[in-house]
Amino acid sequence: MSGSTIGKNFTVTTWGESHGKALGVVIDGCPAGIPLSEEDIQKDLDRRRPGSSPYSTPRQERDRVSIMSGVFQGLTTGTPISLIIFNEDQRSQDYSQVAHIYRPGHADYTYHQKYGIWDYRGGGRASGRETAARVAAGAIAKKVLSELKIKIQAYTLSIGPIKIDPERFDEEEIYRNPMAMPDSEAAKKAEEYINLLKEKGDSAGGVVECTIQGLPPGVGEPVFEKLDAALARAIMSIGAVKGIEFGRGFQAAYLTGSQNNDPFSYTPDKGLVKLSNNSGGITGGISEGFPIVFRTAFKPTPSISIPQKTVTHDMQNTQLILTGRHDPVIVPRAVVVVEAMTAITLVDLLFQRILSRIDFIKKALS
Amino acid sequence: MSGSTIGKNFTVTTWGESHGKALGVVIDGCPAGIPLSEEDIQKDLDRRRPGSSPYSTPRQERDRVSIMSGVFQGLTTGTPISLIIFNEDQRSQDYSQVAHIYRPGHADYTYHQKYGIWDYRGGGRASGRETAARVAAGAIAKKVLSELKIKIQAYTLSIGPIKIDPERFDEEEIYRNPMAMPDSEAAKKAEEYINLLKEKGDSAGGVVECTIQGLPPGVGEPVFEKLDAALARAIMSIGAVKGIEFGRGFQAAYLTGSQNNDPFSYTPDKGLVKLSNNSGGITGGISEGFPIVFRTAFKPTPSISIPQKTVTHDMQNTQLILTGRHDPVIVPRAVVVVEAMTAITLVDLLFQRILSRIDFIKKALS
Amino acid sequence: MSGSTIGKNFTVTTWGESHGKALGVVIDGCPAGIPLSEEDIQKDLDRRRPGSSPYSTPRQERDRVSIMSGVFQGLTTGTPISLIIFNEDQRSQDYSQVAHIYRPGHADYTYHQKYGIWDYRGGGRASGRETAARVAAGAIAKKVLSELKIKIQAYTLSIGPIKIDPERFDEEEIYRNPMAMPDSEAAKKAEEYINLLKEKGDSAGGVVECTIQGLPPGVGEPVFEKLDAALARAIMSIGAVKGIEFGRGFQAAYLTGSQNNDPFSYTPDKGLVKLSNNSGGITGGISEGFPIVFRTAFKPTPSISIPQKTVTHDMQNTQLILTGRHDPVIVPRAVVVVEAMTAITLVDLLFQRILSRIDFIKKALS
Amino acid sequence: MSGSTIGKNFTVTTWGESHGKALGVVIDGCPAGIPLSEEDIQKDLDRRRPGSSPYSTPRQERDRVSIMSGVFQGLTTGTPISLIIFNEDQRSQDYSQVAHIYRPGHADYTYHQKYGIWDYRGGGRASGRETAARVAAGAIAKKVLSELKIKIQAYTLSIGPIKIDPERFDEEEIYRNPMAMPDSEAAKKAEEYINLLKEKGDSAGGVVECTIQGLPPGVGEPVFEKLDAALARAIMSIGAVKGIEFGRGFQAAYLTGSQNNDPFSYTPDKGLVKLSNNSGGITGGISEGFPIVFRTAFKPTPSISIPQKTVTHDMQNTQLILTGRHDPVIVPRAVVVVEAMTAITLVDLLFQRILSRIDFIKKALS
Repeated sequence: MSGSTIGKNFTVTTWGESHGKALGVVIDGCPAGIPLSEEDIQKDLDRRRPGSSPYSTPRQERDRVSIMSGVFQGLTTGTPISLIIFNEDQRSQDYSQVAHIYRPGHADYTYHQKYGIWDYRGGGRASGRETAARVAAGAIAKKVLSELKIKIQAYTLSIGPIKIDPERFDEEEIYRNPMAMPDSEAAKKAEEYINLLKEKGDSAGGVVECTIQGLPPGVGEPVFEKLDAALARAIMSIGAVKGIEFGRGFQAAYLTGSQNNDPFSYTPDKGLVKLSNNSGGITGGISEGFPIVFRTAFKPTPSISIPQKTVTHDMQNTQLILTGRHDPVIVPRAVVVVEAMTAITLVDLLFQRILSRIDFIKKALS
Repeated sequence: MSGSTIGKNFTVTTWGESHGKALGVVIDGCPAGIPLSEEDIQKDLDRRRPGSSPYSTPRQERDRVSIMSGVFQGLTTGTPISLIIFNEDQRSQDYSQVAHIYRPGHADYTYHQKYGIWDYRGGGRASGRETAARVAAGAIAKKVLSELKIKIQAYTLSIGPIKIDPERFDEEEIYRNPMAMPDSEAAKKAEEYINLLKEKGDSAGGVVECTIQGLPPGVGEPVFEKLDAALARAIMSIGAVKGIEFGRGFQAAYLTGSQNNDPFSYTPDKGLVKLSNNSGGITGGISEGFPIVFRTAFKPTPSISIPQKTVTHDMQNTQLILTGRHDPVIVPRAVVVVEAMTAITLVDLLFQRILSRIDFIKKALS
Repeated sequence: MSGSTIGKNFTVTTWGESHGKALGVVIDGCPAGIPLSEEDIQKDLDRRRPGSSPYSTPRQERDRVSIMSGVFQGLTTGTPISLIIFNEDQRSQDYSQVAHIYRPGHADYTYHQKYGIWDYRGGGRASGRETAARVAAGAIAKKVLSELKIKIQAYTLSIGPIKIDPERFDEEEIYRNPMAMPDSEAAKKAEEYINLLKEKGDSAGGVVECTIQGLPPGVGEPVFEKLDAALARAIMSIGAVKGIEFGRGFQAAYLTGSQNNDPFSYTPDKGLVKLSNNSGGITGGISEGFPIVFRTAFKPTPSISIPQKTVTHDMQNTQLILTGRHDPVIVPRAVVVVEAMTAITLVDLLFQRILSRIDFIKKALS
Repeated sequence: MSGSTIGKNFTVTTWGESHGKALGVVIDGCPAGIPLSEEDIQKDLDRRRPGSSPYSTPRQERDRVSIMSGVFQGLTTGTPISLIIFNEDQRSQDYSQVAHIYRPGHADYTYHQKYGIWDYRGGGRASGRETAARVAAGAIAKKVLSELKIKIQAYTLSIGPIKIDPERFDEEEIYRNPMAMPDSEAAKKAEEYINLLKEKGDSAGGVVECTIQGLPPGVGEPVFEKLDAALARAIMSIGAVKGIEFGRGFQAAYLTGSQNNDPFSYTPDKGLVKLSNNSGGITGGISEGFPIVFRTAFKPTPSISIPQKTVTHDMQNTQLILTGRHDPVIVPRAVVVVEAMTAITLVDLLFQRILSRIDFIKKALS
């Protein structure tokens, strides 16, 4: 399958450019019999939507999703689910400024090199707007996971130099502040930091952490579709992501084996436990049945209004001063995108996990 | 395709357990007309082979590769290339100790959970030994890349707390010291550090850095087979890897947009250049045509002889003291594995890159 | 990828049910730089459209296609092309009759068994209407092929017992008569035969023949993606198809080797020729560079108004008398569907053919 | 995945040339926990083996299979199963005659065109010998199916003009006569016919019929991985196959809807039955739960000793008189190959069938 499709048995195909008629996604391989409404999807789209806080772009996208197929009488039918989000606020003229200039940090240059032609309006296919389709598909993946009592939770761990304090971790806070941080104090500081950058016309990056609860052991297919490998691919495919790490991640490289290994212990009441979780819940590329934790680094938004050196398409050196208003930070909006890509990946590997044992197969068909 | 296959047009399928009859790999989709000998493959296998330095396991694997198909009169024929490495040194009795105990940090527990049964001898399929097959396939991928003047170079960046000094970077040094470090002084310190850990029965991890030179722009398929996403998946599929980052990586999350964006500049003699390379050579998931850089974190080898808390298969708490000799560090041997997975990924995406433009397709068929 | 996607590098994903909001298709992997308009697609859709002759269902589908993405300034951009055909004439109440009865010859029973739930309105996903999406995708595949001077031509070979006379073969006639037969006399007889069946409330099947001109040698990937194997899969995936044969097909089973082998001959003016074409242009699963010919059998339309024995969902024996008007024959409308599936298959295998030789790859990237 | 791999969740990759060191196959995705021995595989290989009757080539291949991986303590482990069949009787000199001539009916010309180079010894990769690897994989697929009580049975329906009489159908007879016909009288006539052709240096083709018993309803993935589409692809990928048809097949094109539709009927003791089986057990591309029947046409063996017109690689017209001994018919040996490809296809689609309903998935994971 080509580059706009992910997944083997739960297959997600996105399409659409930032300023085209619409964005959409086809989800093929969603099992029949799951209750699904547009509202189930809309609530995740609303978490991604810009304009919901003073720190995101004021472009008024309403991002209303329509289910075009695959659902009948409120249930999934097992046939492809097509979702469309029409683009309502297309002001292409805003982008004429950049039709002939390669914006630093953006994909203008690489798209032009690759295809010879590209829809430069609003970043075209490379726009963060494409992630709306992923979030819509992710909402369906989450519905599948919720049938199996599996829960994904992502949040902002840091924005620029401002990190959350794990001791103040409060899950509900994630939904209360515009930074999507589980720590209200850090969120306040992050807002101040963002305000400062915004005044300068600059932007910030950050780190998103994601946890998975309730995933049974045995998920992940050695040796190339390991759970961490599949998640890394899915998460790295989000624009602006520059790195991913699991459990102790890069820190593990500095530890010794005796520090890093997670000892097992069994007690009759708790069952099997690990005395630490440096692995982040995955060993040998297979889920352990313990909580999974990974972190992913987002670079600062490349759209800044500070003057930048660059070249035109015909290789004239020039200075770019982007006008218009741009997100000084996309990290809080990316939180639900990280959840979406995680959910899509988990469903696909969960399905394969069933097929790894003949006793599971017999149970399914009995 | 199932978990032991990677690649769409250049397809690599590995098989074999640590202590089975043999390890092998089938490479399907290698173009016809490329000179290929067993020696081309053997030289990379020798870089991975244990026993070549005092810091790697003394198990005497000769790891001789045989080409079983797909090559005729010294040239690839376009049909599947099957490679086999027979296991010559199988002492299964060495592993009876761990047949009923879950070793911390190893995949014993997750394999058992996933499959109900597993070949526990020497780690079975989860053994680092499986990477010999990857290295063999990688050597063929490198042959394809060398036809196109593309070069991959990986090396040890750090072992435990010992890092190389970029100012002393010497590419040839990589092949001279047992740490595969491009800095002889750092290599010496790393050896001392490893000796210390070895005495204690402990182990170290480290970071491997990989660079790609000569890759044309336009490689990588948005939005799910982006070059960085595909590399992340391939590299994270190597056992013991816990993280990957491109260009500035996690650091980018702490920078501002004006610090992180790479300005373009054009001069008639040098052509287009970037004034920095924070992106690591990839934007929007597509190669820029500039050097690519990424780093990957390896956890410390989980096999240590220091006593560890763990449980038996029937959930009895116990203490494990591994006997036998084990690698105190696998990072230097992993360098060529990183190169192999990178090469396999690049060939596959290079092939797809050809298909992205009708003018390329016409040229190919003309 | 799941069942609604076909193709590896040129990937086609269809979605939609007969009486849902719309039908659609996403084409991913179409190379950049090909001129494409809605009109290019519409003209093939019009060949498939019902209501264009007295022998097809009078349901007024206008089947207007919209390009939603992937085309900019009249050229394909290499990003996914999303096409939508809105359903304008949905009278679901017409189908209440069959909501609880399994119609013989239709997929009602198997869909119900497979999914537990299905959208029974108008046959839902199993409706022939789904092929509109295939035809739309096929029109784009044909655009790619026309850039490479490859031409596909299908036509009705027989309807019920009425066959064309090869001596009267006239390609232009295919577009003139409602039977899509290249023989006006046979077409007239077929019309009479269909009129007769229509009066009785019965239906007919037929055979479609398809030829491919201009395909270079070397297309088809041994051993499982052979050209004939891939075409067989693509064509058999069309509803109502019950068989496919290449060249002499089933007749070849009755010949001897000396009768069936195609001798080669060379003359300076004609170059290499075959003295017969029993193979149908494919040997060893690879195109020979000579014309390709295959035939495919369509069963009679299962919707008939003659009373039929069947059962209800709760296993009550009953008699079904379908009311409403139905196509007494779908073969003429299926001709363009056969072309579409052929085109989609050829583009995908042509792309892979480029990758089979290192000299082709070098040319493409030079 | 490339052309030598088939299957999505049960993935089969074959490799090897007729006169290389060995042939082999990797089966990835076989569930853990299935008893498997080399003997299970050998017995199907022995059915394919040449030299077992006077009508097949006397080349002495013993075709002993070795399990190289994926089985531990007599059970499949869920990891890739690698099978090797070493080539013991390689007399390459026998084939020097054809190193520079394109044999009519063989793939010499198309392989040369495709790859520029090919291993011409004994047909190389295009040799029927490659099917030994398929039969080995098929034997494992049959083991999976036998766990689920599904049975595949193929047999020779006709050789040249000699057909079996359905009234004399005797399943056990298939294994008794060298024609693999379920009718001893037809088998005798076929032997006489073959003897006659053999004397003349000519060859025959034939038709193989295959039946599937015990397959539950719901198998097959609309719209492109329909059961009949997937089987057609798998069967057409066998060398020498020129056509396939399901149920009434090509005959259905001549029937009316009222003749061809299969009425349903329910009786308390028999449950749901169909009053005919013109569909061949598949509707809408999904298994009905009733017996499946299809037929496939094999062309006559192209290797004949009668003089044939052809050309050399440098386009000189010449006459080819093949020496050496060749099978005058390969149909009886192909019977087990048809079974193998059927089994491989069924396992893959059975696995996907599990994933089509959330209630099946919950049962599997409960």
